[in-house]
Amino acid sequence: MNFIGERINTGFKDIKQAVMDKDPGPLQDWAKKQAAAGATYLDVNLGAVSADPADMCWMIETVQGAVETAICIDTNKPKILAEAIKACRPGMLINSTTAADEKLDAMMPIAAEHNASIIGLSMDEAGTPKDVDKRVENAGKILAKAMELGMEPQRVFLDPIVMPLKYMQDQSQRILEAARQFQLFSDPPPNVVLGLSNVSNGTTHKKLINRIFLVMGIANGVSAAICDVMDMDLVNAALTAELVMNREIFADSYVRT
Amino acid sequence: MNFIGERINTGFKDIKQAVMDKDPGPLQDWAKKQAAAGATYLDVNLGAVSADPADMCWMIETVQGAVETAICIDTNKPKILAEAIKACRPGMLINSTTAADEKLDAMMPIAAEHNASIIGLSMDEAGTPKDVDKRVENAGKILAKAMELGMEPQRVFLDPIVMPLKYMQDQSQRILEAARQFQLFSDPPPNVVLGLSNVSNGTTHKKLINRIFLVMGIANGVSAAICDVMDMDLVNAALTAELVMNREIFADSYVRT
Repeated sequence: MNFIGERINTGFKDIKQAVMDKDPGPLQDWAKKQAAAGATYLDVNLGAVSADPADMCWMIETVQGAVETAICIDTNKPKILAEAIKACRPGMLINSTTAADEKLDAMMPIAAEHNASIIGLSMDEAGTPKDVDKRVENAGKILAKAMELGMEPQRVFLDPIVMPLKYMQDQSQRILEAARQFQLFSDPPPNVVLGLSNVSNGTTHKKLINRIFLVMGIANGVSAAICDVMDMDLVNAALTAELVMNREIFADSYVRT
Repeated sequence: MNFIGERINTGFKDIKQAVMDKDPGPLQDWAKKQAAAGATYLDVNLGAVSADPADMCWMIETVQGAVETAICIDTNKPKILAEAIKACRPGMLINSTTAADEKLDAMMPIAAEHNASIIGLSMDEAGTPKDVDKRVENAGKILAKAMELGMEPQRVFLDPIVMPLKYMQDQSQRILEAARQFQLFSDPPPNVVLGLSNVSNGTTHKKLINRIFLVMGIANGVSAAICDVMDMDLVNAALTAELVMNREIFADSYVRT
């Protein structure tokens, strides 16, 4: 399971303030905490705080000054990505491209050139599809582009695009079915990733819903999630699901505390 | 979701003693507690305490004297079943038949005659299959027999036969895949049931493993479980999974306490 820690994001007040003040403390604290909790990647998101690639590079270098964990560069701007990726140690993940030609043609060559992995959102110029087939078509287009550029399928993290259960209840099953079908593209299959917290938007029982949806995702082949890696109930639920899928060898001591 | 309460079973010491003493107290207490927790059926199992159908009938009548919840008659003996079913109010579930001819020919006509539902274990004379295909073949044989006798497919609860994760780790995925394929037999599909506690046999984190396996089952079409219905974490996990499958309309108040 690839746990992508979501916390180093200027959407959180403490991170926003720290970036504006160039105060490394909060970024490094969250980097250490998420790494200790078992994060595979640390998502780093500059958001709307600045359009200057140097600020994103500062964030990445600050995080890398505290931990060895690989960076997930979270930006939809090719210009920021092109600079940020040079600041990263090897093994980075890019968050994200889509199947829209302009985006795909800008982002995927950068991933290929730097030997990075990349998240591919199964949406295109027309937005996020409501049905399974179009999600699969968009995902297939992203994967084909990556393979055309010589990338191995496992370096592509296909994202079926999670929708809020409360407001679009009929979407969740389709998202799971799309995840399942993404497995069929190649052998070994691409990775499949969920932007987890979306599913519980606006609900009372967020952690429960996040946890159950991730487990159902793993039952359908999901291998990665952008999520709260500090939530040990979530992590232990995911680890249990991975044992059921026979991805790790069973040991009674698998639960993390 | 069909929650089948597992607790009125002479495998538990208090129930065994109560049956030997013909003391209704413990059976009625567990009947009320499980019904209050939301059980759809109450499993009643005489076990090896007696071979006398009158003792099974006493158990059923005792439970029915306390609650309205439907009975799940848990016996593999056609002679006990034939008497016990007459003691039940309508809406009962029989636990269980298999695909073995002798068993199927003895049990299924009793289910058909009394308008009962029935659990069909996907095993046969050769025992429990290790692979998906043979499980599906056995389940199909059971469902075909039921339909031949005029029963609706939803009255058949197909059981892929849960194996211990710790000792047969490669089986769990196959069990989930068999459950998924059981859906394809008919429209509307048959019910699919798990004998849940088997999955966590011998493990340290039983409740966690039961809960995660049930959620993964629901993601694969499972609609019933024989389980600890008093375990509210289990029940709430299952209810959340059903919302994801769009089987109930979302409301923030769905969690039980």
